[in-house]
Amino acid sequence: MTPGQPDPLGNLTGEINRRIFLQGAAVGAAAVALGDRAAFAAVAQNPDQALVVGQIARQHDATVKMLQEWIALPSIAAENRNYPQGAEYMATLAREAGFQQVELVPTTGKPGVFGILDSGARTWLALYFMYDVKQFDPSEWSTPPLEGRLVDKPGYGKVIVGRGATNTKGPQMAVLAALHAFKAAGKKLPVNLVLVCEGEEEIASPSFKQIVFKPPVEAALRKCVGIIIPLGSQSPDGSVEVNLGAKGVVELELVSSGEKWGRGPKLDVHSSYEASIDSPAWRLVQALNTLVKTDGHTPAVEGFFDLVKPLSARQQAILEASIPKRNEAGAKKLLGIDHWFGDESFHDSQVRLVTQPTINIEGLVGGYTGPGGKTILPHRAVAKLDMRLVPDMTALGTLDLLKKHLGKHGFGDVEVNMSGGYDPTETDPDSTLVKAMVATYRKSGVEPLLWPRLAGSWPGVTFTGAPLKLPAGQFGLGHGGGAHAPDEYYVIEASNPKVAGWDGAVKSYVDFLYSLA
Amino acid sequence: MTPGQPDPLGNLTGEINRRIFLQGAAVGAAAVALGDRAAFAAVAQNPDQALVVGQIARQHDATVKMLQEWIALPSIAAENRNYPQGAEYMATLAREAGFQQVELVPTTGKPGVFGILDSGARTWLALYFMYDVKQFDPSEWSTPPLEGRLVDKPGYGKVIVGRGATNTKGPQMAVLAALHAFKAAGKKLPVNLVLVCEGEEEIASPSFKQIVFKPPVEAALRKCVGIIIPLGSQSPDGSVEVNLGAKGVVELELVSSGEKWGRGPKLDVHSSYEASIDSPAWRLVQALNTLVKTDGHTPAVEGFFDLVKPLSARQQAILEASIPKRNEAGAKKLLGIDHWFGDESFHDSQVRLVTQPTINIEGLVGGYTGPGGKTILPHRAVAKLDMRLVPDMTALGTLDLLKKHLGKHGFGDVEVNMSGGYDPTETDPDSTLVKAMVATYRKSGVEPLLWPRLAGSWPGVTFTGAPLKLPAGQFGLGHGGGAHAPDEYYVIEASNPKVAGWDGAVKSYVDFLYSLA
Repeated sequence: MTPGQPDPLGNLTGEINRRIFLQGAAVGAAAVALGDRAAFAAVAQNPDQALVVGQIARQHDATVKMLQEWIALPSIAAENRNYPQGAEYMATLAREAGFQQVELVPTTGKPGVFGILDSGARTWLALYFMYDVKQFDPSEWSTPPLEGRLVDKPGYGKVIVGRGATNTKGPQMAVLAALHAFKAAGKKLPVNLVLVCEGEEEIASPSFKQIVFKPPVEAALRKCVGIIIPLGSQSPDGSVEVNLGAKGVVELELVSSGEKWGRGPKLDVHSSYEASIDSPAWRLVQALNTLVKTDGHTPAVEGFFDLVKPLSARQQAILEASIPKRNEAGAKKLLGIDHWFGDESFHDSQVRLVTQPTINIEGLVGGYTGPGGKTILPHRAVAKLDMRLVPDMTALGTLDLLKKHLGKHGFGDVEVNMSGGYDPTETDPDSTLVKAMVATYRKSGVEPLLWPRLAGSWPGVTFTGAPLKLPAGQFGLGHGGGAHAPDEYYVIEASNPKVAGWDGAVKSYVDFLYSLA
Repeated sequence: MTPGQPDPLGNLTGEINRRIFLQGAAVGAAAVALGDRAAFAAVAQNPDQALVVGQIARQHDATVKMLQEWIALPSIAAENRNYPQGAEYMATLAREAGFQQVELVPTTGKPGVFGILDSGARTWLALYFMYDVKQFDPSEWSTPPLEGRLVDKPGYGKVIVGRGATNTKGPQMAVLAALHAFKAAGKKLPVNLVLVCEGEEEIASPSFKQIVFKPPVEAALRKCVGIIIPLGSQSPDGSVEVNLGAKGVVELELVSSGEKWGRGPKLDVHSSYEASIDSPAWRLVQALNTLVKTDGHTPAVEGFFDLVKPLSARQQAILEASIPKRNEAGAKKLLGIDHWFGDESFHDSQVRLVTQPTINIEGLVGGYTGPGGKTILPHRAVAKLDMRLVPDMTALGTLDLLKKHLGKHGFGDVEVNMSGGYDPTETDPDSTLVKAMVATYRKSGVEPLLWPRLAGSWPGVTFTGAPLKLPAGQFGLGHGGGAHAPDEYYVIEASNPKVAGWDGAVKSYVDFLYSLA
């Protein structure tokens, strides 16, 4: 991830980790001990599926070893490390798992990988993979980050520790392990697969559209009922949330400077001169102050709410059903708050969280920022903002509204520098994809919490937006943590019986393919 | 100087260095080559004075050596270095220069030094000295900072380089050298002297009032017509400004936090939650916005201008006489501005500079301040402000107005943390002290620019305020630079004939004593 760029999956992973506390004890009362290798096979629904699932435990050691070997080859775009080796390795992994047609997709950046596994089924499913991982500093790790060592993690069980363990080689290898189970059982997949893989996710996917919209790739994707992003979706308590969309986001800097303004100093000057010259810092404060209403919260940018689409009756029903399952006290504690905005009820605050676009100050930086004071008048001051968007707002459209607003209020000189962002996403709760996800979780004894819209953001709009308009979402049992951090892990044998271990995660993909078919 | 503490003389020195550019070529057309050791003696006005001045050049090498030896013993309060040696050394220097009664003044901090030189004259003058210096890092210097090496500085001439060279051992030693000249000439001083010296100036003089208001010290000061702070007051072009006062200052932090507010998070949280929780950063923006009018400049704190005293007719006349001598183009260039506030004329902007109190943003610090963005909602945001005060505003009174204003506007939870400050100072332009300064400069061929009030600040109010109400000001020919910086210097032999060298600086103090008498 480059500085200033939103980190799509990392952001999302962060969301998911943070989301944990929003889920109460009501969710996740799994009926089956998912982590129990011996027991889960009984859940299989038909003879073929049972045969395939039966292979998983037999291949356990081999597939974990495959994951370890993959972890040993880190492709890191920011360091230009292991290209095109990472793409070639990915292609080999796909071929060995049964993809018949696998090719590298050159881009102006790092190559992608495109694969087809046509088993002659009626239904097509797309898989999004990334073969790159985040940078790491071995000195910060308690085991070598490329070793993929299996260690006991208190409270979690046996986990694999390595860069990419959960983000996202672990969950992706669990999908490939599921395909190996089909091969070993001699069974055809109940759905055909399209693999779309990139090697630049951690630098914000600059070339991804070149992969997705290469004609044969796009054509293959158009056949699909949806796309899944493999993820260890379980919280440590075993609960799972299925998000039916996410807010969009614009990240930007507002910069007030003497240079652009043509008033105030072009360099920091002694503060005594404030008496007779203008201050870009005061100007920033005034410009900012126009962006929200007197409640200090509600966006006041002209036209900001014009494209806000109310929740559909279906979305509303899902929201109303899920709010009571969320844990207000836990949320307040973890957010460190005593009141919701406007002293609203938890219910209303959750409706607001899902439905309302926002303008947030991420940071303020101007002039002297060290300890104590320094008598200067700064020539420049910056506010770092993010705006969260709901359908049908767009990132570029909202950016434009902000610029127009500033111009209209006489702050046309205040620079608006967008550093990243993307439109909101929505996936139909009644889509085959979501229904199959929910059904699979339920069959595994996990009652997923449906949630109409993640308040955070991920760039799924490449799939969910025009022209593809694919249902899209993260899927997978299992649990991992430490994405982008030292000691990244993914659970191999869970100590909590409600959490799937490696074999349970692999099985969740086998089950999902059958559910989808 | 400790972080967060205003640095009285350093601040002032900075003002003076910055002030250079405000002076045009109109000032400083010195008739006499001040730097010429042989020539200046002719200026002496009476036989005694001529005899005394005649000693200066003879003692040149000896007094420069005394300065070098003093530089070799740095007292640094922040490092607890050379105490009480520095005070004892100062006392010895005073005794050797002719002070009959010299004693250390214990305080709860570092000791001061109090001295009396009673020559039986009618007039008493006080001298403010500091024996401490700023910290230094020898690796940043081009010559050893304690050596006081004489080097050629292009454009300046022969200078002494060392910590304290200009701030303030050089100018102070020039005063002592003047006293040695009286001794060598066998002449009595035309005025009696009171020496008040501290060793904590660089940490903002925390114990200074214990020295000044020790009964015998205060009693001696009450006899004085005023107090001078020795300073190499000349700009590189030779010009000199006499400030007849200075604005006061309050430095403070405004802190908006979830903790104090009782709303918003008590820790940084993911920015997506902004939808349903309050933001301390927005609150800071709103509180700040109430502090200035819609012009983004004029203080809007209730009562802020109530105690602003208009300039007297005398002050006004001085101001009007001096404004045309200031250099607008040079000022604009060095401030990096194209317009004065409100597109005012240079004249009006200078009136504003002298007469108006201000509220300035020194810095803004909140949330994520690094490169690019980070999707957080910060729990805390800080604005560093300074307020410049004119008579009869007071530091504590203005702080109180600010707090009341915030409370009245519903921002009573926004913390107001004052880190330093002091009241404005004023010195009567018709005081004997100022008249003697002006007369001395003129006799040396320098037409000083009178200025009613420095827009910057120094804590002279200890002297100028109640109960002493002494006229006070910096005085001395000569030039130095690099206070608080590496390669601090003081000119010993000036290449610019309009600038006094060592002997010229020493002579300015001899002349001043005669002018005052």
